[in-house]
Amino acid sequence: KHILVVPGDGIGQEVTAVGKKVLDKIAEKFGHEFTYDEALIGHVAIEATGEALPEESLNKMRASDAVLFGAVGHPKYDNDPSAKVRPEQGLLKMRKELGLYANLRPIKLFDELLGASSIKPEVLKGADILFFRELTGDIYFGEKGRENNGDTAFDIARYSRFEVERIARKAFEAARTRRKKLCSVDKANVIETSRLWREVIQKIAPEYPDVEVEHQFVDATAMLLIKDPRRFDVVVTANLFGDILTDEASQIAGSMGMLASASIGDGTGVYEPIHGSAHDITGKGVANPLASVLSAALLLDISFGMKEESEAVINAVDQVLKAGFRTGDIADAGTPKDQVLGTEAMG
Amino acid sequence: KHILVVPGDGIGQEVTAVGKKVLDKIAEKFGHEFTYDEALIGHVAIEATGEALPEESLNKMRASDAVLFGAVGHPKYDNDPSAKVRPEQGLLKMRKELGLYANLRPIKLFDELLGASSIKPEVLKGADILFFRELTGDIYFGEKGRENNGDTAFDIARYSRFEVERIARKAFEAARTRRKKLCSVDKANVIETSRLWREVIQKIAPEYPDVEVEHQFVDATAMLLIKDPRRFDVVVTANLFGDILTDEASQIAGSMGMLASASIGDGTGVYEPIHGSAHDITGKGVANPLASVLSAALLLDISFGMKEESEAVINAVDQVLKAGFRTGDIADAGTPKDQVLGTEAMG
Ligand SMILES: CC(C)[C@H](C(=O)O)[C@@H](O)C(=O)O
Ligand SMILES: CC(C)[C@H](C(=O)O)[C@@H](O)C(=O)O
Repeated sequence: KHILVVPGDGIGQEVTAVGKKVLDKIAEKFGHEFTYDEALIGHVAIEATGEALPEESLNKMRASDAVLFGAVGHPKYDNDPSAKVRPEQGLLKMRKELGLYANLRPIKLFDELLGASSIKPEVLKGADILFFRELTGDIYFGEKGRENNGDTAFDIARYSRFEVERIARKAFEAARTRRKKLCSVDKANVIETSRLWREVIQKIAPEYPDVEVEHQFVDATAMLLIKDPRRFDVVVTANLFGDILTDEASQIAGSMGMLASASIGDGTGVYEPIHGSAHDITGKGVANPLASVLSAALLLDISFGMKEESEAVINAVDQVLKAGFRTGDIADAGTPKDQVLGTEAMG
Repeated sequence: KHILVVPGDGIGQEVTAVGKKVLDKIAEKFGHEFTYDEALIGHVAIEATGEALPEESLNKMRASDAVLFGAVGHPKYDNDPSAKVRPEQGLLKMRKELGLYANLRPIKLFDELLGASSIKPEVLKGADILFFRELTGDIYFGEKGRENNGDTAFDIARYSRFEVERIARKAFEAARTRRKKLCSVDKANVIETSRLWREVIQKIAPEYPDVEVEHQFVDATAMLLIKDPRRFDVVVTANLFGDILTDEASQIAGSMGMLASASIGDGTGVYEPIHGSAHDITGKGVANPLASVLSAALLLDISFGMKEESEAVINAVDQVLKAGFRTGDIADAGTPKDQVLGTEAMG
């Protein structure tokens, strides 16, 4: 199997190195042969080539069996609203070009981290949510621009039935293998793309009679995720709502530093932490690499069908947490100083 | 002073009755004369007149000194994505026609309710956030519709410099009277309206050198609100992001049933709970009326300049909570059964 490592920006570099090391160990233990290559994306790609996603990187992605991804982003562009080339364009182009329409974000709390969350343990215990975020449509990819000499800005959100249906089916199928509950999140009381979204879910729901479907508005969902996270099983939603709700839901898992994601679709799958480039802690060697490690686990499971190998990785994470080791983001007042590890040691 | 009571749908009816009773009591105690009228909006207006906001209601709003508002919405429309007339259109039309561009949502936890939230008390204690949600622009009011025989839906988000600047100035001015911190929330790494938003904030910030400004992405903010709510003072954001983030932030205040809001702009101000019509508990007499009571307090303060009267209302709420009385949504395991009150008794 050929794996492309795409560390990108900021802590992407540090955590992806750890994810790769874990893949190496798995190959060794289970007698697989993994070959690797690297490619540029984001700010580092702009610096090197002028483009956020050079054609060469894209070709390497297409030619690989799976991509282990880091993060993109740089404060330089954030504070310059008029920048024409931006790291995020690389990420969005990758998603679009590889047809990565389904972004799976499992939110599950390791029992050992019950105390690390700002949410009460009794509210959290047992929470286990699988998000399906649509990843190649919505306001992310519609036309955008300026009018009136730059004094007015606009963005167009757009969805087709086809786009909604393919992600919805993936979510329904996943619900079948879990607790058989699907929550579709929209803002159908105000926006038209949401009304289409709801129509499609309602239309295909009868094909999955074993799955219980509910519709929630995005504002209510943002509230319910904190009030009662256990009420959710599988959640399916549009690109922008998914972006917001999954970051929020990271608090259910104790820390953003624990959350992995899989982006799948028509071709090569991409596996990445949901945290970003985190320039505030870049280069300090303190970033939590477990999201990248768990992304490697998703890669093994989903792209390579290596269930046992994937579980070995998850178990290893569990053991390390049980043994009391923490990175700074998941340490609490009770963690002994010598059990708070840096990125490499945690790896 | 002439107050228009607009209960709208669901529990809007029950809670607004309590809000009005409190205004009556204030008039009596402080020697004011308040006159009242009622008007229809939402589902009840559609049933009676075929329109979600009849011209008569709008005229009455314009002619009053302040509006005490309930809620709009009905499950009937939510499950019918193709409905042409919807309760929410009444609310949106009211906001637009009255020029209510600034929606103030203060999120403050009454100390007595520390235990009622799903967030840990040590994370919450002292949290005090004032949201400024833009209320008459964004994807709520842009063109929307269908293409390709209804197979594709679109929504246009739009903002002008003027629209961003007027809400931003209100937020900067409020920050000055508080802890002098302003967090502007956008998604400038992806959408153009957010880039314009950030440009405007950056441009006017130097006029408020005493206010410390930060920019956050909406996804990160959704996470930070739960992780560390105390880091926020004043938050200013666009209509859709504000809708989502303030519902989420309701958990900081223990319950959505505690949160009041003020919608202000060019003319008459509108005061309303941030909870919705809540048809699941409508007619049961169990809704928490305190959000309406606290909305009445905002009305007295902002529209009538009656600070003392407003504080009297807030103190009364505080006293009632101190005395141990709760509605179901803010009761916890430790609340004695006979201290759990219904809507009227709490009023
Ligand atoms: C970096 C940014 C463009 C991206 C997004 O909004 O999709 C990120 O927040 C994510 O969730 O992957
Ligand atoms: C009912 C709905 C249209 C409304 C909104 O989205 O603005 C509500 O959620 C609110 O926050 O006032």
